[in-house]
Amino acid sequence: MKSKISNALSDFFFEYETPRQVLVRNRKVGVVCRLIQVVVLAYIIGWVFIYEKGYQTSDTAVSSVFGKMSGVSYTNASGNEMVWDVADYVFPSQGDSSFVVMTNYIITEGQKMGKCPELEGNCSSDGDCEGGSLKRQMTGVCVNATKTCEVLTWCPVENDRNIPDPPLLMSAENYTLFIKNSVTFPLFGVTRSNLVENIDKEYIKTCLYHPTDSPLCPIFKLGDIVKLAGFNFETIAKEGGAIGIVVDWTCNLDVAVKHCKPKYQFHGLYGNPNETDKARASMGYNFRYAKYYLEDKVQKRTLLKVFGIRIDIIVQSQAGKFDIIPTLTAIGSGVGIFGVATVVCDLVLLYLLPKKEFYKNMKFKHTITQTPDPDSEAVSTDTAMTK
Amino acid sequence: MKSKISNALSDFFFEYETPRQVLVRNRKVGVVCRLIQVVVLAYIIGWVFIYEKGYQTSDTAVSSVFGKMSGVSYTNASGNEMVWDVADYVFPSQGDSSFVVMTNYIITEGQKMGKCPELEGNCSSDGDCEGGSLKRQMTGVCVNATKTCEVLTWCPVENDRNIPDPPLLMSAENYTLFIKNSVTFPLFGVTRSNLVENIDKEYIKTCLYHPTDSPLCPIFKLGDIVKLAGFNFETIAKEGGAIGIVVDWTCNLDVAVKHCKPKYQFHGLYGNPNETDKARASMGYNFRYAKYYLEDKVQKRTLLKVFGIRIDIIVQSQAGKFDIIPTLTAIGSGVGIFGVATVVCDLVLLYLLPKKEFYKNMKFKHTITQTPDPDSEAVSTDTAMTK
Amino acid sequence: MKSKISNALSDFFFEYETPRQVLVRNRKVGVVCRLIQVVVLAYIIGWVFIYEKGYQTSDTAVSSVFGKMSGVSYTNASGNEMVWDVADYVFPSQGDSSFVVMTNYIITEGQKMGKCPELEGNCSSDGDCEGGSLKRQMTGVCVNATKTCEVLTWCPVENDRNIPDPPLLMSAENYTLFIKNSVTFPLFGVTRSNLVENIDKEYIKTCLYHPTDSPLCPIFKLGDIVKLAGFNFETIAKEGGAIGIVVDWTCNLDVAVKHCKPKYQFHGLYGNPNETDKARASMGYNFRYAKYYLEDKVQKRTLLKVFGIRIDIIVQSQAGKFDIIPTLTAIGSGVGIFGVATVVCDLVLLYLLPKKEFYKNMKFKHTITQTPDPDSEAVSTDTAMTK
Repeated sequence: MKSKISNALSDFFFEYETPRQVLVRNRKVGVVCRLIQVVVLAYIIGWVFIYEKGYQTSDTAVSSVFGKMSGVSYTNASGNEMVWDVADYVFPSQGDSSFVVMTNYIITEGQKMGKCPELEGNCSSDGDCEGGSLKRQMTGVCVNATKTCEVLTWCPVENDRNIPDPPLLMSAENYTLFIKNSVTFPLFGVTRSNLVENIDKEYIKTCLYHPTDSPLCPIFKLGDIVKLAGFNFETIAKEGGAIGIVVDWTCNLDVAVKHCKPKYQFHGLYGNPNETDKARASMGYNFRYAKYYLEDKVQKRTLLKVFGIRIDIIVQSQAGKFDIIPTLTAIGSGVGIFGVATVVCDLVLLYLLPKKEFYKNMKFKHTITQTPDPDSEAVSTDTAMTK
Repeated sequence: MKSKISNALSDFFFEYETPRQVLVRNRKVGVVCRLIQVVVLAYIIGWVFIYEKGYQTSDTAVSSVFGKMSGVSYTNASGNEMVWDVADYVFPSQGDSSFVVMTNYIITEGQKMGKCPELEGNCSSDGDCEGGSLKRQMTGVCVNATKTCEVLTWCPVENDRNIPDPPLLMSAENYTLFIKNSVTFPLFGVTRSNLVENIDKEYIKTCLYHPTDSPLCPIFKLGDIVKLAGFNFETIAKEGGAIGIVVDWTCNLDVAVKHCKPKYQFHGLYGNPNETDKARASMGYNFRYAKYYLEDKVQKRTLLKVFGIRIDIIVQSQAGKFDIIPTLTAIGSGVGIFGVATVVCDLVLLYLLPKKEFYKNMKFKHTITQTPDPDSEAVSTDTAMTK
Repeated sequence: MKSKISNALSDFFFEYETPRQVLVRNRKVGVVCRLIQVVVLAYIIGWVFIYEKGYQTSDTAVSSVFGKMSGVSYTNASGNEMVWDVADYVFPSQGDSSFVVMTNYIITEGQKMGKCPELEGNCSSDGDCEGGSLKRQMTGVCVNATKTCEVLTWCPVENDRNIPDPPLLMSAENYTLFIKNSVTFPLFGVTRSNLVENIDKEYIKTCLYHPTDSPLCPIFKLGDIVKLAGFNFETIAKEGGAIGIVVDWTCNLDVAVKHCKPKYQFHGLYGNPNETDKARASMGYNFRYAKYYLEDKVQKRTLLKVFGIRIDIIVQSQAGKFDIIPTLTAIGSGVGIFGVATVVCDLVLLYLLPKKEFYKNMKFKHTITQTPDPDSEAVSTDTAMTK
């Protein structure tokens, strides 16, 4: 029994099986099949391996990003000179991956809780002003002077029918944005910051991003961002808008890590003014912001309807690095596709060529075992015919 | 030499090798093997290709999203009528992917820095009130009147032992949320907004999201969101809670891009009231918020303990598009699995059938090369036996 | 015709083809090939399947996360005692995945819009002070007393040349951070919160995160976070800095879902003080924040230059679960790699062994079909030679 097993084992280890092949000497079939095989090989090596880097495993990054604005604006609204600095025009003030730069506003000062007539809507009698709604809390009185309903609200009511034009903070165009971004590819243990090699403190002090001249400078002029996203600054500054800054980390970590550098791209997030489908594009970006204060023991607020450029800094990342598993998977499935090539050639050989019967006999050996006594009668038709 | 190479080349190009096969004519084996092959083929075509879209490469999107609330609330706290608009009840005011809608609050007005007794804790002598701690800055005095320690803090101390019930801003149920979301699939260069075709400005003015009737309307009633997430509005409004709105972009980009539409889903982020494991569910959401002001040259603040519904708009995306590489990888590894089917059938054929010896002889040709003079003695046992 | 088709069908179903093989009985080749095959098999089973879990499909999570600070700080700036609570030192106050904890500040109280001399820069005459710039709005006057230009700005001008040292809110070290995180793996329909089993309300009240002793407690001491990220607290508190807290959900969903637990990691986002490349590391984090108020009908503001620790809570997730497709793809491409092993062995057999000609004859059967009348002359050289 023991020797039987050791025999089987030695048989297994000292023997090696390899498929028997027919070498078909036919110019047409040969050339066609070799061409198919060459194409498959070229595809596997050229496309999957070299172009698509099929030997790499890929990972996306976890990231942290925020922006910091700087610059000041000067406004002169009816003789009231004012300078706006970063604490005044950025929301939220602490910097974030998504923030708003105020470029225009409608200010309603000294609002306090009370009853006052609405600006819009018509009423002829108190009956028209009954029942509250989602949007307003009515008192049921139709004010004679204005012919509008009286509401309980912060008074005076904000009048936002006319948006200041030109925008009040047109000089926002000259603000600068400093982006700080750190990405980590957890699979590869690689951490990178957008302050890459050579982007040191000295360089940052003077540089300004330019798509071709200084593509790695992390300081951006707001006007440039708007232009690169395809907007006109005055248009977007008036009614607001949303712009995405994509920081693109597409890295090949098989080369030195210092070549892993960010690329910056800019695009309008919800359509841009050049878009044909005007109806759909939900242009404009605004929100209301209140500063509260107490005056003579009365709670008051200054309401700002802020129109601004909402900036979303979006990190997009894809790193690849050699890994044995995708490499072998690519090779393995490449061999599989080779098998498909063989199947195609066989179909040509066995069904399309004039001498298909001959090739069939070369390729196949039949066993006929449905006869009553197969062991004696079974013949290999291949040997029978070729003899 | 040259002709030798060209000979080898022409041999290579005009010849084609194909494996020799045995055609086993046996009903049982034939049917079993064909069935296995049919199953494998059905799996590859039906499951991998059609159901799982194995011919597609997939990508997740980079996205930008924010919400904008609207609606007003009316409160009447001890005769003090007040209307809350969006600038008062949303944090942060500029709109974001994650924000809080205030539904209840505890207000502590006119706090100023000073020394006052705590609300809780007992002391009998000054000795009990020594040493500071993480939570409070003690002065070392035990106040006789209240029998609590005196602390240096914003006075008067906030009393948050009783949460207003019913919640003060119950009408928050009627607020509406407008979601603006833009996604870009960088691999395919496709950008979509949740304001898809047909969702134009007119439609947005009047529509309200409903899971079946208007699943694409980007305007949501807060009460609906809470209900769809499985909460009771009054419960969540009282102590706060966190709800995730998932915007699901699962797109097949092989069809027209206009079919790439968002789906909205709602769920409680940290358990919901119906959950069995009450101890774990960390219900409630609140934070403290201060409005600072100067009164008679003294810095004061109004402290709000805000209970609210924290809404996280989460974008989830997966787009697939035909790509040659996954297609060929799927085919290649399908061919590989075909190989497995053949191996299984061979095992049946060679080890389980009664006539296994016969089939072994048909399939294998032996070379015995361990003899001293193999070239003359080597015999193909297969030809020897089948003759 | 019909019978022809049914014949072909029965032929197809009752027949089964299997490749014919040569069994090469040669110790060297046998051992080499078997070893290659064993290595390939070990790689597929051991590495791809067991180690890399190639039978699993993987998914990343969509998540919601926010942090909530608690603790108070005491400062005594020139006799002005002050206690800072969470409403005073966290930006933004509602809690978010990314927020700033103030640790140091420069306060400029009572700023109002006006004209005042700058702190820096020299001028000798009004001519030196002409033209505005990005950073300031000049009035064109050189102030004699200070020899600096006069600017229109919030006056008095902030003096941020000396950063308070030691940092004013050193006791921030004792603040605690409570992280709430919910992740959903949409592919598997699994939702998890970082308040996992056993982390109930009682436990949370008393626990404090420790890397080895209580790695699941979601309460973190700020000083611990800073230390674990490799910083010195006093250094980072003085000028600010950015720290990432990575919540790592690497889950194997083939085992019970309760084993899917978060791991917390801490690292400096933009370099840390131990880094060699000092020039690059953009240390420090600060922003300006204004509190507005009205005094005697004049708009004023208190400007805070806030130095703080910016905390980014970053969720990183990867879940795997058994799936039939990656399993079969792995098997399929494993079979393909097996094919490569056979090709390698064949190369050895047919080109390197001394008896290669013999093996070539065993493996290949030639068809010579370029002769004028192939049907009669075609011979299988294999049978011809082995006979």
